[in-house]
Amino acid sequence: MTEARSVEPWRSAITEADGEHLRIRGEAVTSLMQHGSFCDVVGLLLHGKLPDAGERRLIDAILIAIADHGAGAPSAAAARVVATGNRQAPEAAVAAGILAIGDAHGGAGLACFQLIEEAMERMNRDEMPLEEVAPLIVFEARAAGRRLPGFGHRMYREDPRAVAVLRLSDELGKSRDGVKLVRLIEKALSTAPKPIPVNVDGVIAGVLFDLGYPALAAKLIFIIGRTAGLSAHVIEEYTRERAMRITIPVTYDGPGG
Amino acid sequence: MTEARSVEPWRSAITEADGEHLRIRGEAVTSLMQHGSFCDVVGLLLHGKLPDAGERRLIDAILIAIADHGAGAPSAAAARVVATGNRQAPEAAVAAGILAIGDAHGGAGLACFQLIEEAMERMNRDEMPLEEVAPLIVFEARAAGRRLPGFGHRMYREDPRAVAVLRLSDELGKSRDGVKLVRLIEKALSTAPKPIPVNVDGVIAGVLFDLGYPALAAKLIFIIGRTAGLSAHVIEEYTRERAMRITIPVTYDGPGG
Amino acid sequence: MTEARSVEPWRSAITEADGEHLRIRGEAVTSLMQHGSFCDVVGLLLHGKLPDAGERRLIDAILIAIADHGAGAPSAAAARVVATGNRQAPEAAVAAGILAIGDAHGGAGLACFQLIEEAMERMNRDEMPLEEVAPLIVFEARAAGRRLPGFGHRMYREDPRAVAVLRLSDELGKSRDGVKLVRLIEKALSTAPKPIPVNVDGVIAGVLFDLGYPALAAKLIFIIGRTAGLSAHVIEEYTRERAMRITIPVTYDGPGG
Amino acid sequence: MTEARSVEPWRSAITEADGEHLRIRGEAVTSLMQHGSFCDVVGLLLHGKLPDAGERRLIDAILIAIADHGAGAPSAAAARVVATGNRQAPEAAVAAGILAIGDAHGGAGLACFQLIEEAMERMNRDEMPLEEVAPLIVFEARAAGRRLPGFGHRMYREDPRAVAVLRLSDELGKSRDGVKLVRLIEKALSTAPKPIPVNVDGVIAGVLFDLGYPALAAKLIFIIGRTAGLSAHVIEEYTRERAMRITIPVTYDGPGG
Repeated sequence: MTEARSVEPWRSAITEADGEHLRIRGEAVTSLMQHGSFCDVVGLLLHGKLPDAGERRLIDAILIAIADHGAGAPSAAAARVVATGNRQAPEAAVAAGILAIGDAHGGAGLACFQLIEEAMERMNRDEMPLEEVAPLIVFEARAAGRRLPGFGHRMYREDPRAVAVLRLSDELGKSRDGVKLVRLIEKALSTAPKPIPVNVDGVIAGVLFDLGYPALAAKLIFIIGRTAGLSAHVIEEYTRERAMRITIPVTYDGPGG
Repeated sequence: MTEARSVEPWRSAITEADGEHLRIRGEAVTSLMQHGSFCDVVGLLLHGKLPDAGERRLIDAILIAIADHGAGAPSAAAARVVATGNRQAPEAAVAAGILAIGDAHGGAGLACFQLIEEAMERMNRDEMPLEEVAPLIVFEARAAGRRLPGFGHRMYREDPRAVAVLRLSDELGKSRDGVKLVRLIEKALSTAPKPIPVNVDGVIAGVLFDLGYPALAAKLIFIIGRTAGLSAHVIEEYTRERAMRITIPVTYDGPGG
Repeated sequence: MTEARSVEPWRSAITEADGEHLRIRGEAVTSLMQHGSFCDVVGLLLHGKLPDAGERRLIDAILIAIADHGAGAPSAAAARVVATGNRQAPEAAVAAGILAIGDAHGGAGLACFQLIEEAMERMNRDEMPLEEVAPLIVFEARAAGRRLPGFGHRMYREDPRAVAVLRLSDELGKSRDGVKLVRLIEKALSTAPKPIPVNVDGVIAGVLFDLGYPALAAKLIFIIGRTAGLSAHVIEEYTRERAMRITIPVTYDGPGG
Repeated sequence: MTEARSVEPWRSAITEADGEHLRIRGEAVTSLMQHGSFCDVVGLLLHGKLPDAGERRLIDAILIAIADHGAGAPSAAAARVVATGNRQAPEAAVAAGILAIGDAHGGAGLACFQLIEEAMERMNRDEMPLEEVAPLIVFEARAAGRRLPGFGHRMYREDPRAVAVLRLSDELGKSRDGVKLVRLIEKALSTAPKPIPVNVDGVIAGVLFDLGYPALAAKLIFIIGRTAGLSAHVIEEYTRERAMRITIPVTYDGPGG
């Protein structure tokens, strides 16, 4: 009854999966399975090419750094609240957790990456060294009352994950202008009223920028790593807690209350 | 570069939207906009035909009954937790809320509808009146330690929404075997150890069964109505609270803690 | 083992549901169920107060207008693709559909609402009548190569839903500056190269602005209405199609392909 | 105005993140970042303890095997359809992709894991060797017209990913009863009408069972790995395609059509 119609197929340069070949960016998946690591595949998928040893190490460190941050983080809490009402669809709980990764939670990496891109444009356009661009960025943000994405953390005075990624990036000889800028901004933020150090999102942005990743990768790599943590929270909620155990205390303060 | 391919188009009997006509189940949308109500369209969409006055009234009452139940319900809480981390995508917060509508929260309507379907099969197959099927169902559930979906509520001794829908269904002359069974089960559950009255999900199942809706509608109508409440919670969270204001207290009780 | 901790409860002015009362914005839900309509509750939830007859009629017309637009719209297509892989969680399919309601699909209402707000600020600040603000907005958008949200539709030369909502708003005496501005922009867009009429999203923005709704409501009311359509698509996919029936033709054009 | 209330905090044995320590299952995250791999953390999160070398290798191989399968898989297609309508929330597109990972797509691992658990119970209860349990399972499934989860693939006669994981599991000395049963079922399915070989989901189930993972991990590890592929599809859709480019051809076959 319904006639076939001629349509333009979608095009994709990611994975060839036609029943005969299974290759990601031209690399055979079965060969990667034997000799490669998941971080190689993350590099292939987000960066478009096989990472070298240093890039692989950094991707590994980043994925580990953001894999989990406890049940109270909005993404984990959202996953667990969904799991308390929905005991038959773990994918729903994980997806809800990912939806909490917006601008205010886990999204600073993308915003900081864009800030780095703008700073580089400015450096080139205005022929201004990063040493001058960084304090300018801080000055402008302070004047406008804006917080700089990738700096400061509600829990840490110094984010230990940021420190560890920065050290690795230096040791592996991968730090370039992105990391440099992040450090310069941190330095400009180190003065009064109180120092605001770079956090793990800001460092991820700097490192991925230096590795040549696209801006979106700064948020997506957070999502990839955190999905492991969300999965653990869903297992714990399903296996250790009863359905509907979560009670949020609420005070009604509307009309007639 | 990519050649067009011949594909079978999807088929759909719901809405004709070809740029010339816009009709839902054959009814012109612009005409519905002038003379109809949203409940007419919900009927067209879920039931396949225009509701009569009684059906429309019942759909209205059901949508109102489940539109919201406060910020502490898992769906609302999930939406708000997502909104605390994601301030730029209200659709993400609403979607997370919907994902909490699983088996344990808002899903009892679907499960109860299926229970009604099985009871009707049993009535027909075993030539057993509903008056006998109902206590049997209760007996079997108790023996197996199962709770019956659509009965009992953690907050209400008598769910006022259930009472209101049942009364309307009777007044409008729409109550049939579905509602009858639900009442018979409630009666069988009214004895020791303590009475477990029907809740709003159970009544929705009975009423939708009697109206001839498909089983899935019992969950989906809950989702449609509750989306209004979730939307209000997202607005309130976005406009009245600051980002990342939600803190869930967590005690770590794992290794090394 | 875990000690109780003292926390600040969430506060909410939407719904009082404490087991004793069930009231939305102070209105008893059971009373609304008997005498009100779902649109009353949508008004209570999104606008904070009971709508009068005209507002109720407009909300009804808007919800109907956007309830569905066929299986090919991104939201419906997303819901159906999810339903093809996930046959046991209709909530997952509906949620995926809602996630497609972003900036490019269904989000123009919110963007147009913000455009109206900015125009009003301009009118007040620069003491410039809307008759002058509107062509200025069009001129600036054209100069910047930006499309104006709420105007133009890939399928319609004249969006019949927009026409119907506008007529109702006039007839009900509800049109104010929001609708006026939308019409003035449409007029300014009616000249060369080709006229770009207002679409349903633009009209919803104008009407909700005039009714005093918050900007977010322009997107959320789209989500509320469309959830009914998405629900129908999920039922149709579950009951009429087999699992995994959807095949998207893809051409690989990456390395080694 | 709102009084603080005393609540039981959530408890969690996964991650200690109190601002002083950051440890997953007692292991310091910064130390894992320097010396470990993401697969160690996946093991910690899903299995509760640090994997040995063989387990780590298998987790790596599994994550690679399921990282992507092209744009046409329901999860990738859902992510891209959402991305076509929503250009400002990559998390929404990834989440929609995950929601497609249900029973029919990517969910066979969990179902097969449960089948293995039941088979082991049967082996123990009935003192029947797996060599007899496996053909019985196949016989019963065929008699009931049920397909066995984890066996057969619409695209492959022999799933190359399954072959590769099995070989690794053997080489690393990790194959136990789970893998044995999967192979015995494959053998029982190798006869008429046509052989139905084990697929990657079935092998993942067998391997994770032998490693001692919980059943839910069989679905969640698929989600973790596939999130990398979904991320690549979202980047490609955002950067290579224009908004709203996806058109699904639909034939209306309802009333009045």
